[in-house]
Amino acid sequence: MAEAEANDFSLVAAIDLGSNSFHMVLARVEQGEIRILERLGEKVQLAAGLDEDNMLSEEAMQRGLDCLRRFAQLINGLPPGAVRIVATSALREARNRGQFIRQVQQVLGHRVEVISGREEARLIYLGVSHTLADDEGKRLVVDIGGGSTEFIVGERFESLLRESLNVGCVAFSRQFFPDGRITAARYSQAYTAARLELMNIEQAIQRLGWSEAVGASGTIRSVGQCIQAGGRGQGEVNREGLQWLKRKVLKAAHVDKLDIQGLKPDRQPILPAGLAILEALFDALGVEVMPHSEGALREGVLYDLLGRYSHEDVRERTLSALMERYHVDLDQAARVENKALRLLQKVEPAWQLAQSKLAPMLVWAARVHEIGLDIAHNQFHKHGAYLIEHSDLPGFSRPDQQTLALLVRGHRRNLPSSDRLSEFGDEAVTLLRLCMVLRLAILYHHIRGFQDMPEMTVEAAEDALAVTFPAGWLEDNPLTQADFEREAQYWAKAGYRLTVR
Amino acid sequence: MAEAEANDFSLVAAIDLGSNSFHMVLARVEQGEIRILERLGEKVQLAAGLDEDNMLSEEAMQRGLDCLRRFAQLINGLPPGAVRIVATSALREARNRGQFIRQVQQVLGHRVEVISGREEARLIYLGVSHTLADDEGKRLVVDIGGGSTEFIVGERFESLLRESLNVGCVAFSRQFFPDGRITAARYSQAYTAARLELMNIEQAIQRLGWSEAVGASGTIRSVGQCIQAGGRGQGEVNREGLQWLKRKVLKAAHVDKLDIQGLKPDRQPILPAGLAILEALFDALGVEVMPHSEGALREGVLYDLLGRYSHEDVRERTLSALMERYHVDLDQAARVENKALRLLQKVEPAWQLAQSKLAPMLVWAARVHEIGLDIAHNQFHKHGAYLIEHSDLPGFSRPDQQTLALLVRGHRRNLPSSDRLSEFGDEAVTLLRLCMVLRLAILYHHIRGFQDMPEMTVEAAEDALAVTFPAGWLEDNPLTQADFEREAQYWAKAGYRLTVR
Repeated sequence: MAEAEANDFSLVAAIDLGSNSFHMVLARVEQGEIRILERLGEKVQLAAGLDEDNMLSEEAMQRGLDCLRRFAQLINGLPPGAVRIVATSALREARNRGQFIRQVQQVLGHRVEVISGREEARLIYLGVSHTLADDEGKRLVVDIGGGSTEFIVGERFESLLRESLNVGCVAFSRQFFPDGRITAARYSQAYTAARLELMNIEQAIQRLGWSEAVGASGTIRSVGQCIQAGGRGQGEVNREGLQWLKRKVLKAAHVDKLDIQGLKPDRQPILPAGLAILEALFDALGVEVMPHSEGALREGVLYDLLGRYSHEDVRERTLSALMERYHVDLDQAARVENKALRLLQKVEPAWQLAQSKLAPMLVWAARVHEIGLDIAHNQFHKHGAYLIEHSDLPGFSRPDQQTLALLVRGHRRNLPSSDRLSEFGDEAVTLLRLCMVLRLAILYHHIRGFQDMPEMTVEAAEDALAVTFPAGWLEDNPLTQADFEREAQYWAKAGYRLTVR
Repeated sequence: MAEAEANDFSLVAAIDLGSNSFHMVLARVEQGEIRILERLGEKVQLAAGLDEDNMLSEEAMQRGLDCLRRFAQLINGLPPGAVRIVATSALREARNRGQFIRQVQQVLGHRVEVISGREEARLIYLGVSHTLADDEGKRLVVDIGGGSTEFIVGERFESLLRESLNVGCVAFSRQFFPDGRITAARYSQAYTAARLELMNIEQAIQRLGWSEAVGASGTIRSVGQCIQAGGRGQGEVNREGLQWLKRKVLKAAHVDKLDIQGLKPDRQPILPAGLAILEALFDALGVEVMPHSEGALREGVLYDLLGRYSHEDVRERTLSALMERYHVDLDQAARVENKALRLLQKVEPAWQLAQSKLAPMLVWAARVHEIGLDIAHNQFHKHGAYLIEHSDLPGFSRPDQQTLALLVRGHRRNLPSSDRLSEFGDEAVTLLRLCMVLRLAILYHHIRGFQDMPEMTVEAAEDALAVTFPAGWLEDNPLTQADFEREAQYWAKAGYRLTVR
């Protein structure tokens, strides 16, 4: 029987039989969009069950099958083609994998594919690229697994270079820290082993070049969280944090004595090896900072199942979906967006906003500022901000979402407080001014297109802005007059003078 | 030209030219549902501008027209029939209303209807009944306005008795507290005047009977807020609170010296009169407690415009709309609902939940527990609770929404904390147990209908519950087994023992 198209299914699932953990995602397909219903993950540590002859132990297979019996219950009724199961490094290596895979297929009722390292790299990139902004510029994506580590250089949805090395945190733990003791010499051996492997690919990566590095996988997330808990970052891995964490790890001398805030117990045994691999790749590839992306192999498998590799801007699609979902008045959103863009030009001489990397936020905020109305009119700016902060918005990073939420929340009533703005450091003033531009555009179109609005002259100064309507017009249009008078009071609280004539 | 059906419009507006305030609501019509886009309200105090000959002063008319010029800008383009403007007491009385209404019609471009007190009562009831649970039993609805007070006894959407008395907080303020001074004698005169008027209707109301009283209008909300700020209630008006507030008001001796927490400045001058009217009607009609409903005349006008008087259960419609809006898996919701109802019977001997007034919450929570998935999978129980707490849910009271939100939030991960539960007083244990029943139903159907589930025997005791599956079944279905094992840990934290065999 020919397998059906994935788009024909209402439910799809992807299972990733990794060397450290097994994962499953179950998702609903809605008009080509994926909505995650369930995520299950268990630390099976399959790679730890490989002996020197690359034979998988009975115990390891048993752990894996026990886990999959739990997964199986949830995908019992799904038809062939709606479930894709991929197996990676540990099963690429295991000489007795045939036996295990037959049992897995019996338990799950679906075919298992052992995929190559390069195919794994392609799928990882597909998963990660759906969570990232569709910026131009090449990115380096790294996924440190239990048995192998994948490296991809890609642009937008396309991976240009895909590599997989036999370097993994479970395998390295067994090899270099078998009894859990940590010494500088052992750490150094692990580091060197990783550097040696990396020599196979570092030149190719440097030749291609990349402008930002992104990490996927639990090891990178976990190290980032330890660094953050130690006050040395915001969740990303950075050089200073790596050195600090390495000193703490060496000082502990044994994995059982690692007392590190932010470290989950099940990651404790594999931290030293993961850290050595991370340090090696930072040095070999000249990485300075590596944020973490939640997209990973299993998400890539889902997108692959749906045939989604398009080059459209993910963020545009995400925002359009958001506007449709929450019944935004599209005409009004377009009016506000256009007006905001024109105002941006007018204030440019004094406020210099257009060059800021936050400038695109103005357009996005204009489109979605009314989504909260769909929940309730009362406090709808807050509901909109909640939706933007908590929704899965492919293409937007977490800080992006927080910035956008701040603008949406600040689009009426009080301007963002100086407390909230101070979190944005150098960008605080820019963000406040973008918010002001957005609010002027919204006030200007308060009457929702029922009335042709006259030209409004705008003149900005450092901490003031003058708006001029044609003589006599304001007197004939007292809602606009009252709106701008109230607005001037809000601006005054933020130290800005708004005059309206 | 025959006026078009309101359902043909995408935007509709209602304006209420009240004796104390003018209000406008602008709403979008979506498949017969109303979504509020804007609410504007201004304290015009038209009734304060009526002289002894019932002539409206030029100043009062000017205040009214200024306000309406602001409103007008927002409804400029709306076609005839999409806007309905009603005028009440002050304009029923004003002998020179013709002059004012002509000017109003020029400003707004739509016809003004001066409605009778009884028609006003009918529309108020229509507005209020859309916000209340569609319970059986008669209710008394009272709206204290600036110039008149309306009394309605009704059942579901139908008003059985509609009365309007010339008793209003602005009119009474002018009459009994003209210079703002407050004395016991003046208060007593106002009280007596209201009692005298009430004598016209109290027998008819008592004869018809009613089981709950509900207040609409700013006066009742404001008095309830003062009582709450004084720690004597949750926002409703009650006898003890009335007496306490009356003592504070008399002690202040002048409206300018009223220093009452929770009282907005613009309500200060009319508080003594409003309080006297409220006390009079509590005494005359034997009211003990009166919560406030947000629905009012203008909402009633909107519903009237849409021809919405149906007897369907508002709450059923509200929940269905919520499930559709957030793409709930209807099959799964129905499975969980049915299972929850069957479990309710099984635990009844020990837990006695069925008679609780909270019992219907179990069914409602079963239907909507997954709505948060539409925002994001991560923490979806919290997103669902947020949506339920903040959405306009016609038919559900605010405490209803909070209870439902608590159940939805508690449907996975931790059970509701004892802190949160303690807010529910006597009902805390009932609520916790309802939550447990809901969770069992959800766990039982975790596999979403992909598998026929076997009979599950349930035996409840005071603080324990035993679940039994057919022998050997759990071993073959390890996800269910793992689910219930984890569940037992959550129950243990709440002091309950869950055993599963």
